[in-house]
Amino acid sequence: MKKTITLLFSLVVATVQAQNADSVAIRSIYNETLAHGKSYEWLRHLTKQIGPRLSGSTGAQKAVDWTKQLMEQQGFDRVFLQEVMVPHWVRGAKEEAYFRIGSKKTTVPIAALGGSVATSPKGVEAGVIEVKSFPELRALGPEKVKGKIVFFNRPMDPTKINTFEAYSGAVEQRANGATEAAKLGAVGAIVRSMASNADDSPHTGGMRYATGVPLIPTAAISTNGADLLSKSLKENPGLTFYFKQNCESLPDAKSYNVVGELRGSEKPDEIIVVGGHLDSWDLAEGAHDDGSGCVQAIEVLRVMKALGYKPKRTIRAVMFMNEENGLRGGVKYADLAKQNNEKHIAAVESDNGGFTPRGFGIVGTPAQRAKVDPWKPLLAPYGLAEIGAGSGGADIGPLAQLGTVLFGFKPDSQRYFDYHHASVDTFETVSKRELELGAASMAALVYLLDTHGL
Amino acid sequence: MKKTITLLFSLVVATVQAQNADSVAIRSIYNETLAHGKSYEWLRHLTKQIGPRLSGSTGAQKAVDWTKQLMEQQGFDRVFLQEVMVPHWVRGAKEEAYFRIGSKKTTVPIAALGGSVATSPKGVEAGVIEVKSFPELRALGPEKVKGKIVFFNRPMDPTKINTFEAYSGAVEQRANGATEAAKLGAVGAIVRSMASNADDSPHTGGMRYATGVPLIPTAAISTNGADLLSKSLKENPGLTFYFKQNCESLPDAKSYNVVGELRGSEKPDEIIVVGGHLDSWDLAEGAHDDGSGCVQAIEVLRVMKALGYKPKRTIRAVMFMNEENGLRGGVKYADLAKQNNEKHIAAVESDNGGFTPRGFGIVGTPAQRAKVDPWKPLLAPYGLAEIGAGSGGADIGPLAQLGTVLFGFKPDSQRYFDYHHASVDTFETVSKRELELGAASMAALVYLLDTHGL
Repeated sequence: MKKTITLLFSLVVATVQAQNADSVAIRSIYNETLAHGKSYEWLRHLTKQIGPRLSGSTGAQKAVDWTKQLMEQQGFDRVFLQEVMVPHWVRGAKEEAYFRIGSKKTTVPIAALGGSVATSPKGVEAGVIEVKSFPELRALGPEKVKGKIVFFNRPMDPTKINTFEAYSGAVEQRANGATEAAKLGAVGAIVRSMASNADDSPHTGGMRYATGVPLIPTAAISTNGADLLSKSLKENPGLTFYFKQNCESLPDAKSYNVVGELRGSEKPDEIIVVGGHLDSWDLAEGAHDDGSGCVQAIEVLRVMKALGYKPKRTIRAVMFMNEENGLRGGVKYADLAKQNNEKHIAAVESDNGGFTPRGFGIVGTPAQRAKVDPWKPLLAPYGLAEIGAGSGGADIGPLAQLGTVLFGFKPDSQRYFDYHHASVDTFETVSKRELELGAASMAALVYLLDTHGL
Repeated sequence: MKKTITLLFSLVVATVQAQNADSVAIRSIYNETLAHGKSYEWLRHLTKQIGPRLSGSTGAQKAVDWTKQLMEQQGFDRVFLQEVMVPHWVRGAKEEAYFRIGSKKTTVPIAALGGSVATSPKGVEAGVIEVKSFPELRALGPEKVKGKIVFFNRPMDPTKINTFEAYSGAVEQRANGATEAAKLGAVGAIVRSMASNADDSPHTGGMRYATGVPLIPTAAISTNGADLLSKSLKENPGLTFYFKQNCESLPDAKSYNVVGELRGSEKPDEIIVVGGHLDSWDLAEGAHDDGSGCVQAIEVLRVMKALGYKPKRTIRAVMFMNEENGLRGGVKYADLAKQNNEKHIAAVESDNGGFTPRGFGIVGTPAQRAKVDPWKPLLAPYGLAEIGAGSGGADIGPLAQLGTVLFGFKPDSQRYFDYHHASVDTFETVSKRELELGAASMAALVYLLDTHGL
């Protein structure tokens, strides 16, 4: 009995000591990041000097070159590119749009959705059918929809506390609205911006056409524009809507994921990924989406080097290409991992903005999630209260099939959809402290994953 | 035994049912606030139409008149004023400041600290002694300090996770720097702004002179200005600093707390206060500090009325006057409560900005805090994870001596000191959703306090 108690006591002491060591290490990670952080100035360069970087664009290539050079300058053990062919959609000349009541034209801000076809060079003008849902549209039937422009105007639900839930509840309009409208003979689809605020910036984003359905042009209208159009339709149901857009899909282009690596000292064949996506929409600086995630990932490795921390496992910062309109980079990364027989034990992605940290979503088995439980008290003092089953991240998603446990960094969601996919997603909307706390939170998790495994 | 078990079971069932009713009520509070909230438009009026409202100013009086009228329009059961005499400090003409190296003058942004005396009409110019702490200053002694301007340049510690801790660690320089410098014969004191970011806006704030020490003029310098001055001092220790300010303290002025009330239906003599302070610094719109707290408090009562909720106890929205430079309104409120034998069971203050909610700090006995424990699971789904012993709020502080339990609404602290007491504390920096979530959080707590008592 005494032996058992002694053993138990030793175990408890060992656990407490380990926790203390972790606690000290995590404190030093936050200290380094908050007092000497580099991510904010890197983000300034990426957004202000490079700017928009849609897949296939010059900006995207510059971002590849610059992050590769940056990671080389940081002295990471290895920096390399992974070639990947990406969709190459271009917006062309700026869109025009107005609605017309009699001879009066009222201009509204629109932006073609990514992947949409152009209108004819003269544009398209037609009567408008406003709907809030696909069932409502289908109930109208082809006789009412044929030859019309369908206006999808279901807002993001403001009563959802997490705005990503509200986004999920509305985004089908953007993704599939054109197809649903075309099935009934519509000639265009205008979609209320996926935005949580009232503003004048259209928020673009990806859409896809179903096969066998006519490809009709589709665009996002700003939330203020949508409200104005809806109000005007109530007063003048016969108004017409005109829009002209000039976008097109070019042949796939060559691009790259950019990978920086610190080689593991004990288990180099076990890999931990931390990443974000390097591409952004063409009309945005992509500060929150997802410049933040990229510079945070690089900062994680920089902080480890600055602290003299030698990881047991191999840690990789990955700048994924093409999250916005194809996910080719994420798929390629997982394909190569499989092909090269790499063992990825965990992947952490930051793609919900550079906001104040709240926690991590985990994609893994209950047993894997349970291994994270003892870390919660270590992370709680840093505002990371929400750690549990959740979503990982689009780019790391394909790694799940290799058994990798996925972690999605979860910053506060309240402001994300004010900026998302719009020209207002600028460097100025990022708080240095919030960005750095996010980087430190990711570094703390990566430290725990590296130290204790999964 | 069976009886006991049955009784226990009934208790558990009753508790679960009560929790369900609470859960539903809290959900409806958030729904109303997020879908139909009025606080954001009220804040727009308070900041953009009324603007700065330092105690004794025309703006403060306008804010009193307008919030009284607003609460009357909302149909609260009673709206009344509490007269209070407040300090009346005025800035006068804008300050001027530069440092001079040889014949080269470099202008830097400063703002007189609230309560400071003016310089002579010609201004003051002297050599500069830079220090990071009072002990460092004292160690220099009068021989080195006499006739000089002391430059207090200890930054807020960026490694503190909660920025209010960093503020607490630096603010003595602003509050007492002039006195400490004057004791050693200095002719002026320049204080690094209490700001967590690098910017060009000086952040003012209250200071006080100790009795028996010469009153020397003192001002805040922007953080960028402080860094530039410090760098220049290293290169040119003999540089001189010039500043001129024109502030003065006028005789106390008449002002008011503004109180709106919903009368309790069962225990009208038990009062719950929810409030913020109506005054702001003269150079700021006071959007976060503390227009947010005021409009949130009014919104709490509006939401209750909109939901048809009849409070058991009396709920008061209180706009306290003069938090910034005297706390006279808070003191007056507690004095009147005592004088009128009012029983205040709880007071909730929002004075940490209109940011995304994190929790509540509680000032009360362990037994009182324990009564809040069962509410935590009801509030956690709304991001309110941090509920426990903490600080209440300056204005409600004087109620503690009457046995009132104090609750300080705790929003995320990361951006607060970017704006605090500076011209950049504008309406545009407030997120509608974050502001509304704060109002709903306060309403949820007030609902629980009203329903269950304390």
